[in-house]
Amino acid sequence: MTASSRPSGRAHDQLRDVRIERGFTRHAEGSVLVSFGDTRVLCTASVEARVPGFLRGKGEGWVTAEYGMLPRSTNTRNDREAARGKQGGRTLEIQRLVGRSLRACVDRRALGERTITLDCDVLQADGGTRCAAITGAYVALCDAMSWLRARGEITRDPVLGAVAAVSVGIWQGQPVLDLDYREDSGCDTDMNVVMNDGGGFIELQGTAEGHAFRRDELDGLLALAEKGVSELIALQRAALAG
Amino acid sequence: MTASSRPSGRAHDQLRDVRIERGFTRHAEGSVLVSFGDTRVLCTASVEARVPGFLRGKGEGWVTAEYGMLPRSTNTRNDREAARGKQGGRTLEIQRLVGRSLRACVDRRALGERTITLDCDVLQADGGTRCAAITGAYVALCDAMSWLRARGEITRDPVLGAVAAVSVGIWQGQPVLDLDYREDSGCDTDMNVVMNDGGGFIELQGTAEGHAFRRDELDGLLALAEKGVSELIALQRAALAG
Amino acid sequence: MTASSRPSGRAHDQLRDVRIERGFTRHAEGSVLVSFGDTRVLCTASVEARVPGFLRGKGEGWVTAEYGMLPRSTNTRNDREAARGKQGGRTLEIQRLVGRSLRACVDRRALGERTITLDCDVLQADGGTRCAAITGAYVALCDAMSWLRARGEITRDPVLGAVAAVSVGIWQGQPVLDLDYREDSGCDTDMNVVMNDGGGFIELQGTAEGHAFRRDELDGLLALAEKGVSELIALQRAALAG
Amino acid sequence: MTASSRPSGRAHDQLRDVRIERGFTRHAEGSVLVSFGDTRVLCTASVEARVPGFLRGKGEGWVTAEYGMLPRSTNTRNDREAARGKQGGRTLEIQRLVGRSLRACVDRRALGERTITLDCDVLQADGGTRCAAITGAYVALCDAMSWLRARGEITRDPVLGAVAAVSVGIWQGQPVLDLDYREDSGCDTDMNVVMNDGGGFIELQGTAEGHAFRRDELDGLLALAEKGVSELIALQRAALAG
Amino acid sequence: MTASSRPSGRAHDQLRDVRIERGFTRHAEGSVLVSFGDTRVLCTASVEARVPGFLRGKGEGWVTAEYGMLPRSTNTRNDREAARGKQGGRTLEIQRLVGRSLRACVDRRALGERTITLDCDVLQADGGTRCAAITGAYVALCDAMSWLRARGEITRDPVLGAVAAVSVGIWQGQPVLDLDYREDSGCDTDMNVVMNDGGGFIELQGTAEGHAFRRDELDGLLALAEKGVSELIALQRAALAG
Amino acid sequence: MTASSRPSGRAHDQLRDVRIERGFTRHAEGSVLVSFGDTRVLCTASVEARVPGFLRGKGEGWVTAEYGMLPRSTNTRNDREAARGKQGGRTLEIQRLVGRSLRACVDRRALGERTITLDCDVLQADGGTRCAAITGAYVALCDAMSWLRARGEITRDPVLGAVAAVSVGIWQGQPVLDLDYREDSGCDTDMNVVMNDGGGFIELQGTAEGHAFRRDELDGLLALAEKGVSELIALQRAALAG
Repeated sequence: MTASSRPSGRAHDQLRDVRIERGFTRHAEGSVLVSFGDTRVLCTASVEARVPGFLRGKGEGWVTAEYGMLPRSTNTRNDREAARGKQGGRTLEIQRLVGRSLRACVDRRALGERTITLDCDVLQADGGTRCAAITGAYVALCDAMSWLRARGEITRDPVLGAVAAVSVGIWQGQPVLDLDYREDSGCDTDMNVVMNDGGGFIELQGTAEGHAFRRDELDGLLALAEKGVSELIALQRAALAG
Repeated sequence: MTASSRPSGRAHDQLRDVRIERGFTRHAEGSVLVSFGDTRVLCTASVEARVPGFLRGKGEGWVTAEYGMLPRSTNTRNDREAARGKQGGRTLEIQRLVGRSLRACVDRRALGERTITLDCDVLQADGGTRCAAITGAYVALCDAMSWLRARGEITRDPVLGAVAAVSVGIWQGQPVLDLDYREDSGCDTDMNVVMNDGGGFIELQGTAEGHAFRRDELDGLLALAEKGVSELIALQRAALAG
Repeated sequence: MTASSRPSGRAHDQLRDVRIERGFTRHAEGSVLVSFGDTRVLCTASVEARVPGFLRGKGEGWVTAEYGMLPRSTNTRNDREAARGKQGGRTLEIQRLVGRSLRACVDRRALGERTITLDCDVLQADGGTRCAAITGAYVALCDAMSWLRARGEITRDPVLGAVAAVSVGIWQGQPVLDLDYREDSGCDTDMNVVMNDGGGFIELQGTAEGHAFRRDELDGLLALAEKGVSELIALQRAALAG
Repeated sequence: MTASSRPSGRAHDQLRDVRIERGFTRHAEGSVLVSFGDTRVLCTASVEARVPGFLRGKGEGWVTAEYGMLPRSTNTRNDREAARGKQGGRTLEIQRLVGRSLRACVDRRALGERTITLDCDVLQADGGTRCAAITGAYVALCDAMSWLRARGEITRDPVLGAVAAVSVGIWQGQPVLDLDYREDSGCDTDMNVVMNDGGGFIELQGTAEGHAFRRDELDGLLALAEKGVSELIALQRAALAG
Repeated sequence: MTASSRPSGRAHDQLRDVRIERGFTRHAEGSVLVSFGDTRVLCTASVEARVPGFLRGKGEGWVTAEYGMLPRSTNTRNDREAARGKQGGRTLEIQRLVGRSLRACVDRRALGERTITLDCDVLQADGGTRCAAITGAYVALCDAMSWLRARGEITRDPVLGAVAAVSVGIWQGQPVLDLDYREDSGCDTDMNVVMNDGGGFIELQGTAEGHAFRRDELDGLLALAEKGVSELIALQRAALAG
Repeated sequence: MTASSRPSGRAHDQLRDVRIERGFTRHAEGSVLVSFGDTRVLCTASVEARVPGFLRGKGEGWVTAEYGMLPRSTNTRNDREAARGKQGGRTLEIQRLVGRSLRACVDRRALGERTITLDCDVLQADGGTRCAAITGAYVALCDAMSWLRARGEITRDPVLGAVAAVSVGIWQGQPVLDLDYREDSGCDTDMNVVMNDGGGFIELQGTAEGHAFRRDELDGLLALAEKGVSELIALQRAALAG
């Protein structure tokens, strides 16, 4: 099989066109529109001078995330979660994942008793929204930290290293990188991999949709993910330098 | 008092810079990003081949709206309504207003047994979000109707005429047009006016924030609103022609 | 067209029989049963020695309202909102309107750090319940203020002036005052007008149900509303003097 | 101990002044304002031509009840259940009791596939609201049945016999009938007894608030309840004959 | 009629096989698996060093209960209440009953400012779950008190006396003790009786399912309940001594 | 480091004492109490002759799971989710995982239009509840399938192969198998691995709690998981043969 046989026409190890646009909205301390191809997620970082009850008085900060999809970000309209009166299981699962991933790169003592909330709202979905959210939220988080430093509220940068995420899957027997919606639907296995800039794994979530995946397939997926994340981290750096 | 004394520096009868960007996202049958200055609302129109129970079998369609604000569309972060488990009173009030306003310009028999849902999501708020939502949703609605006609699902255009909305208020004793957030906060009276292209009133919602407003003040507000809506309708036409 | 052609047989500028019965129940600091014809709303004013969080320590009081309809206050039974687990959009919209209207006539500094809650519960509905609620709640509010003064808790009356409300509409092309349910259902335009005893407008909410209304129709509606509210305020005064 | 020592001054076996006012509101098929002294409950019976899913197609009807207290029916204001988003345990318990009690006196086959909902809303509370609700709801139910017979929808009366309820308690060691709020608060034992006109027990709910009650105390309570219910049933008959 | 005619084959005054197993789980301060025949309820007592707001600073403790059924504890699967988003009326009614019953045997001053929560979760249901819950929760409560005394947190035992509960009913005209599910479904009257070891009544809840019950039937039921409860209290004692 | 240094004293590659007890309750078509050491989960399989809407008429069945923890299954009491009114994010995440894992081993065509619901309720928690739930639910599922075959409702076994799950983690730098609560709390990385009896991976969920894990650590974890799951599958087989 050749890489060109992917529905997207991309090489098996090729990311979609990724764009990271800082300052997309003006109120938030960090505001990033991240695009992985047609997937577009608005990630804002909001700084508040308070922490959840379980951290009060401990001299530590908190980083948390919330996730949502606009009702018509998808091919057919989904019910608005606010109207249904609760967030679904998938939403809660994703926002917990985003929160854990970003906390993994923050020195919460250096942050002090502040909460940074990362709101990741999907404007347009085409697969990989949680990975785009993590990748974009990292940049928004950095901007919020710069804002805190510029105001003299913190003296050293609480960000310990970069974090990015990518999905990988097995499409017609071959591991492929960064699945779009059509590829995701046709994949036997779908895995989301969150890594840092030291090559360490932060989160690994793999699901066999069709047949169970073998160890050698897993190895192939992980290698692709390592490549993808390192490219994403380079793009984050470029965006932050821009 | 001179017009230049408005916080925004605009003339008392001057709209903000208004932009209407069609096709902002690709899944919806209509997708418009409307900007009234720094207020930016994404309005999508979704067509579904079903109607609510009370209309089933009557040969008529339905037009409805939902409204939401991204948590950090505002100066300080608001709780996410999906997380709180319900939509607040302000949200319900606005989405009912948007729905009524758009239904006022649609021949629901010509639409047939279809529902068009207008999702108005505020990406960035700076006053006047409900007026921007109505003005943008009208354009998204027209695009959805074109989509239906292009597919041959309907034969005549169900849109009876244009609808747009603007806010007016009394700022330091003077009626002013299209309030931004700072002006809105400082206004004694705030009124939202929805009108059609025949100069008719569809909705009028005025609230005295400070002193009750006199009849002559009301007359001044209505005159400004007529001017503003007619300019907005010209901008809608230009966008639809574009 | 002659006034006798209204479904109710009333003149076009004629209120229904309005009754204001103070002391309807005995626990509340103010308790008023207000009737606009067959519309009957029980309005109670409850005084509590606390304010919402955003006002704590500011030396100001708060006035708020809640609204409900008994399930069989209407022609066919409506679901009980407590059983459905949430208040509907119409309910929230109305209680926000009642709260704003009554706050408009209260000097919250003179009230001190107290909350007055106006509960408006519809025992029987025949159109115009929100206007009856505002008109009755004003009287209950005055009784609660008298109760506070009689106990020496406040020294000057926080009530700045009277507030009342009436609906107006266009029935078969003619503006008419104080719509009952049958008239309301047949009206092209329905407007609720809240005014004070100085002739100032506090709230204006107009909706075109059928065709959009013209400026001259609006002028006719406002003139009727002014007449109706001034009669209602006279009835409030008589009730309070009684 | 003499009977005059009750806080209310009533004899130990004396009901409060009981009034049953039919036709209190006009939309419901039965509408009764029942007063047990200062306790006033509005009971409406609503007929609907449908049954719950588990009865569909079985040729039987259903009788059910809902209960609510207006927020300021009590001495201090209670939160509105609709605003809190759920009915409390006490409310659910009472409405289940009212529903069972009224079903006990109805031949559901004779009713046919209809639902009668008894809404019992407390306008003013002074103890014994559930007993007043049952006693009043029975009269509203009879009126609804008469309405059905008058329209020829049913041919024989589905009501099998009268049902009424009263509370009894032990106040300073002595059994007393029909407790008002002050007496209820001071009672060691509180029992609600629902009986029919044949002297049969339909529901018995006794709670020891202070010391556990002995068998002889129970016997005394039941004798009082029998007396009270038979007086209430006579009052129901008089009201229905009126 | 002979006793052997009960569906269960038991004598009319015969309890099911009752087992009380202490220490069923290891985290709770008291943990009891109680079986009334095939009805099995896990009762845990949890001690927490806080009281509800209305008791704060009063030097008194609180005892409360929660009740739940595992979805497949019953013959056909019931919806999980956590998934439906609320506890049903029956659940709330039962947990209020269990809480009141256990509070009746506790000296809350001797407990001090602590809360004991009794969680009663039905693993398998075959009638009489609320009675089993009360009977088992009493033993769990005693174990929690022993735990508090062993740690020296309290000096005297707050338990004033034993509490147990049993159901009785009228099956084919004859009073029978301790109904299983099949008997309960076929009974005309069902009564739950909570008593203490002094022979006093704590709660009495009787419901006529078919015909109303006569006074002599009630007397028969109460006599059976007294017998059953005294046997249950002996079994509690044996378990606590074990 | 030697294996004996684990808090539990187990070898690094040693499972806890695992027990699988079939027929723990009698109503469900499958009912299994599974113990991984002190973690005890009751898994029931309920068969219903209906499928969710999206599968109706497609000739396929559905397998789904629900998860809950008894409030005092844990060291300190957790709020009851039914009382809080919603299932938390962790609960939803786990029950989605259990459902996906079990669906992975079922031929849904062979099941026909039936739903099997796997209720996994934690009676006692000591780490690894989700893995125990999956491992036990598989056995309950097999029993439900046998029940269907015994009644002749299905002719071939829809179970495609065995599924079991185990957690692995890095404790003080060393990969260890089957973490109990104390070990889990002290681990840098925690991974849940769901595999089938062919050695294929069904789900992989790894989280770095402290430092990100390296690729070689991941390899060590996966090897331990393979060993653990194969032992668990042997225990499932033995239980099913028993």
